[in-house]
Amino acid sequence: MSEIKTVTIVGASGYAGGEFLRLALQHPYLEVQQVTSRTYAGQPVHFVHPNLRGATNLKFTTPEALEPTDVLVLALPHGVAAREFERYQGLAPLIIDLSADFRLKDLGLYERFYGAPHPRPDLLERFAYANPEINRAEILAKPYLAGAGCTATATLLGLYPLFAEGVLLPKPVFVTVLVGSSAAGAQATPASHHPERAGSLRVYKATGHRHTAEVLEYLPGRPEVHLTAIASERVRGILMTAQAFLPDGYSERDVWAAYRAVYGEAPFIRIVKQKKGVHRYPDPKVLEGTNYCDIGFELEPDTGRLVVISALDNLVKGTAGHALQALNLKLGWPETLGLTYTGLHP
Amino acid sequence: MSEIKTVTIVGASGYAGGEFLRLALQHPYLEVQQVTSRTYAGQPVHFVHPNLRGATNLKFTTPEALEPTDVLVLALPHGVAAREFERYQGLAPLIIDLSADFRLKDLGLYERFYGAPHPRPDLLERFAYANPEINRAEILAKPYLAGAGCTATATLLGLYPLFAEGVLLPKPVFVTVLVGSSAAGAQATPASHHPERAGSLRVYKATGHRHTAEVLEYLPGRPEVHLTAIASERVRGILMTAQAFLPDGYSERDVWAAYRAVYGEAPFIRIVKQKKGVHRYPDPKVLEGTNYCDIGFELEPDTGRLVVISALDNLVKGTAGHALQALNLKLGWPETLGLTYTGLHP
Amino acid sequence: MSEIKTVTIVGASGYAGGEFLRLALQHPYLEVQQVTSRTYAGQPVHFVHPNLRGATNLKFTTPEALEPTDVLVLALPHGVAAREFERYQGLAPLIIDLSADFRLKDLGLYERFYGAPHPRPDLLERFAYANPEINRAEILAKPYLAGAGCTATATLLGLYPLFAEGVLLPKPVFVTVLVGSSAAGAQATPASHHPERAGSLRVYKATGHRHTAEVLEYLPGRPEVHLTAIASERVRGILMTAQAFLPDGYSERDVWAAYRAVYGEAPFIRIVKQKKGVHRYPDPKVLEGTNYCDIGFELEPDTGRLVVISALDNLVKGTAGHALQALNLKLGWPETLGLTYTGLHP
Amino acid sequence: MSEIKTVTIVGASGYAGGEFLRLALQHPYLEVQQVTSRTYAGQPVHFVHPNLRGATNLKFTTPEALEPTDVLVLALPHGVAAREFERYQGLAPLIIDLSADFRLKDLGLYERFYGAPHPRPDLLERFAYANPEINRAEILAKPYLAGAGCTATATLLGLYPLFAEGVLLPKPVFVTVLVGSSAAGAQATPASHHPERAGSLRVYKATGHRHTAEVLEYLPGRPEVHLTAIASERVRGILMTAQAFLPDGYSERDVWAAYRAVYGEAPFIRIVKQKKGVHRYPDPKVLEGTNYCDIGFELEPDTGRLVVISALDNLVKGTAGHALQALNLKLGWPETLGLTYTGLHP
Repeated sequence: MSEIKTVTIVGASGYAGGEFLRLALQHPYLEVQQVTSRTYAGQPVHFVHPNLRGATNLKFTTPEALEPTDVLVLALPHGVAAREFERYQGLAPLIIDLSADFRLKDLGLYERFYGAPHPRPDLLERFAYANPEINRAEILAKPYLAGAGCTATATLLGLYPLFAEGVLLPKPVFVTVLVGSSAAGAQATPASHHPERAGSLRVYKATGHRHTAEVLEYLPGRPEVHLTAIASERVRGILMTAQAFLPDGYSERDVWAAYRAVYGEAPFIRIVKQKKGVHRYPDPKVLEGTNYCDIGFELEPDTGRLVVISALDNLVKGTAGHALQALNLKLGWPETLGLTYTGLHP
Repeated sequence: MSEIKTVTIVGASGYAGGEFLRLALQHPYLEVQQVTSRTYAGQPVHFVHPNLRGATNLKFTTPEALEPTDVLVLALPHGVAAREFERYQGLAPLIIDLSADFRLKDLGLYERFYGAPHPRPDLLERFAYANPEINRAEILAKPYLAGAGCTATATLLGLYPLFAEGVLLPKPVFVTVLVGSSAAGAQATPASHHPERAGSLRVYKATGHRHTAEVLEYLPGRPEVHLTAIASERVRGILMTAQAFLPDGYSERDVWAAYRAVYGEAPFIRIVKQKKGVHRYPDPKVLEGTNYCDIGFELEPDTGRLVVISALDNLVKGTAGHALQALNLKLGWPETLGLTYTGLHP
Repeated sequence: MSEIKTVTIVGASGYAGGEFLRLALQHPYLEVQQVTSRTYAGQPVHFVHPNLRGATNLKFTTPEALEPTDVLVLALPHGVAAREFERYQGLAPLIIDLSADFRLKDLGLYERFYGAPHPRPDLLERFAYANPEINRAEILAKPYLAGAGCTATATLLGLYPLFAEGVLLPKPVFVTVLVGSSAAGAQATPASHHPERAGSLRVYKATGHRHTAEVLEYLPGRPEVHLTAIASERVRGILMTAQAFLPDGYSERDVWAAYRAVYGEAPFIRIVKQKKGVHRYPDPKVLEGTNYCDIGFELEPDTGRLVVISALDNLVKGTAGHALQALNLKLGWPETLGLTYTGLHP
Repeated sequence: MSEIKTVTIVGASGYAGGEFLRLALQHPYLEVQQVTSRTYAGQPVHFVHPNLRGATNLKFTTPEALEPTDVLVLALPHGVAAREFERYQGLAPLIIDLSADFRLKDLGLYERFYGAPHPRPDLLERFAYANPEINRAEILAKPYLAGAGCTATATLLGLYPLFAEGVLLPKPVFVTVLVGSSAAGAQATPASHHPERAGSLRVYKATGHRHTAEVLEYLPGRPEVHLTAIASERVRGILMTAQAFLPDGYSERDVWAAYRAVYGEAPFIRIVKQKKGVHRYPDPKVLEGTNYCDIGFELEPDTGRLVVISALDNLVKGTAGHALQALNLKLGWPETLGLTYTGLHP
């Protein structure tokens, strides 16, 4: 069938690469060609990803063994894709980089948040920031995709329509994100040791979280956004709350209108706002494994304070899922292809 | 399309019914016709099952509003299906009961474990015990299906081939099952109150667990099996360990052979037994939402003691998944239809 | 020995009353005289509180059986202490009410957050708000003690010195609190059902949290404070983060100075702020069972944004511990008596 | 005061050493003199153990800086204490080794379970196995103490009286232990990485668990005991279940009598066996931080199968607590000194 595209994942033993692999294996039009891992080269995929036992017989190879492919996914540590880009660019016409290397166009923001000048500014114009809900045109136009940050995605999806439609004051917006432990990657560290991390609630980035740069770059009008990040007990999932103020004369109706205007056709955005019941607002628990970003809000009538709440699975909608969604768009496939899993309850 | 069958779920606000609903909504040949819940009649499905928001617009109805359907799934409290069977039997040619009412043919076992004579022994011959790996012929032959117990399924799938192939001594077999909190159902109780249950490891059925009856009835040769059940911290998932002895002269090779003989073609059984790595044995964590039962074992060379380990998701392979798998078989559909989700890592 | 005081706890089967009971049983100068519970009257204390098995032989009695005592602790649902005050006031010269009934002096704040006029404004002048770090003089002066709210205590202890010393701008302060499940009490509900709550991160009070009233009343200068409350996976513990701005010209040195000025002698306040290591900021995990409130902060140099972080055990420092600490003060005992448990690691 | 003894802990940054340190700091007659850690030499204790912030100003030193002391506690990796014993033995008249090096007298058992001959059999007669409930006479007689294994302690305390009093058949006893993650120590590994371990239920030692050797050596009559160990989600805590059979003619009354005969005066053993309520059997959750071992049981009347259940905190009663209890005994202090913390609920 002419529709089938081959895909190769570099760094597939990590959590981002492993998640793209999982999604690709269940995608009707993708065929996984190669997966690489220096650490686990020669081992079958299920040695690292036990969920994929029986779903594939692939073994990890080294990056040196890469062959040409239709879609090349790079899931490498920060800085590696930029540094070694020449190694990869001849291998595939379509490259998806899941790192932070090509997300920002604003070189000043990059330097401010990453502490050094961008190593390869010449490559930036080839990449589209792969947030399909707010950046579809660029995704269709550019040859490559830069996967967005998970925390940035949760924040942007919650706030973008409000700023796009002028519903929030551009005064300081205060964001608090609760992030699951998988967002820090597959490498064991003293802080990730189960006896230390289990049950902890730790502020891990009170100020200066790097994903803030994406939020600043992609929110319309560049409002003043402050972000504090807390490590939660969950393995997967982000819960974002933002607090800001509506302009005088604006009401809940305007908030609804803004979300409808921007997300009216978005298949993976659900507004969750109920007066009653257990599940009144977004909760990352019910989103495990799904590509949804659930969004809710609450307005404090006497102060005009708006609390925006968003939730997603950091590895799916926050990483591999939106990248696949963007790939679907680029290749002219249905946007939701391979991404329709609904999640579990309870 | 003539393939499509309508399905109606009675008691769909509970965890067993809700899980069948989730699977049915994603099944290519099933169309969910009605879902009932006395408590939530009139509410949309997602009020109770937030994962299904956007996946269906169905609302719960009362059982009084039931209409004829192709497949009727009963997910009712113990004893109700037997007591009210006349209410349901005219509604559909194919009935699946997920309760314990019709699982046992041995009336003595029923009375011993349920504390009273079976209320409707006349109905038993119409039901097949819906464990597809060990009871396929009956599933194809009988008009109705009796969903198996989750703990019984984990235990039976781990032990059945060993007794079928004569690899274990019929001396006492000691089974310990660790069970997630969802297995006790959707009703809040003092013991299920989060501050009480979170972090607890509680023996909840040291002796006399009712699912033992199914194990005794369906294990070949009716060996002496003892079962102790412990409530674990997980929401979903069962980990079963069994300890028993190989006959003299038997070795690990015979254990492998037994599993291969019985499960060689079974798409949902995976043998997990690795010498190295993090994931050496079955673990219910990686099975959330899947229909797999992973099975592993370890032989103590100097004593002949065999430790058998099995894991599954109590609501999928333990309840709704195997019932759907049996339904696929009965209707001549591919056995794995709608059940191919691989689960997540991490 | 003349030092010994008898104490009676009304509502001792709940979490707040049970925690005061636990602390009182280990206090060298307190003798627990009676504990009441309508639900569990006649049962031994350990039937409800298994940790106290062997620590006491007391059984719950009904409130009707109360006898005169030295210290009477009321741990009743909201509104009951005010409504039934006459029943209790003759029983003891010193009353500690752990509910919200007598915390606020500002009747307008009470009505705004509790939705009705205060039922007994005449009683308010007899009660001191029992936060020993910020309200010691009143605690010594008034005959009765009103235990503070757990979320209010975490917020007040984090912010009070900064406003008392003029280190924060009185512009909006945005507070996000993560709260353990025990803060909602011992009554099982659909939302507290383990399968529903476990693993959830739920905004449960986006706006209008009642403890906000205490924060507003007791913060110097009554700054504009906004609070959003999220239910976390923990059973015990609160993590509070606040975001606000320093006035021009102020620096981290002023923040340190403010905390030192107010908390220099406070035995239960620890400033936790490390550049390295796993435990750089306050974390409720390491505070389980302790009376500490750990406080940390981080200043964003280029914006003047200050992130304040505080953590405590909602049932100890947030409820029963600070009440006992205030009682120690009132009775002229060492402030830390019976409250020196250090907590665990890991 | 002449009662005061100085104590020095070698390897105090680990979990066992850190726990002994915590207990020693709160003990009225112990004064902590030195704590060593090669990794953290020069750091304050609270850098590693955040619970001890404010409880001590001690810093870690290197083992080379050790000075003579009254009590020397060795909390070193397996084999180090035996290998380097000469380095330590001159430093203190009383040595407590928390490793497995000196627990077994039976050299054959040591070799079978540890895979090599014992390196220093000459030292064994100086050490008493420090389980105070079953080995008090030896603890008083020998100069040194060998701390017992946590899993062995849970198993021995549950089974010892039954074999001592002849209440169980010496036929195979099947033990399943659920063990918290802190039992594997403070070193981060791929298996202890939070995303991998959180939510897992993993058989980590199906056969051949080394603590089995202690169970075999110290159970009267050396019955045939088989043990399977499962890693649970908890950080602290062990739940042990054992299944075995009563001899003909024995009843529940005999089980009670056996426990009373052996544990009648034991301050840290509680029999937990209730017909009703949430807390019917031992649960490690309510034992966090305590020195209790709770024991319960259930007899299956028609088969004579007895299920024995025990629970404890692996770092307290399983490691540092029983060692301190034994030290109290040796020094003629009250057995419970410094060990009276009751634990929390919920």
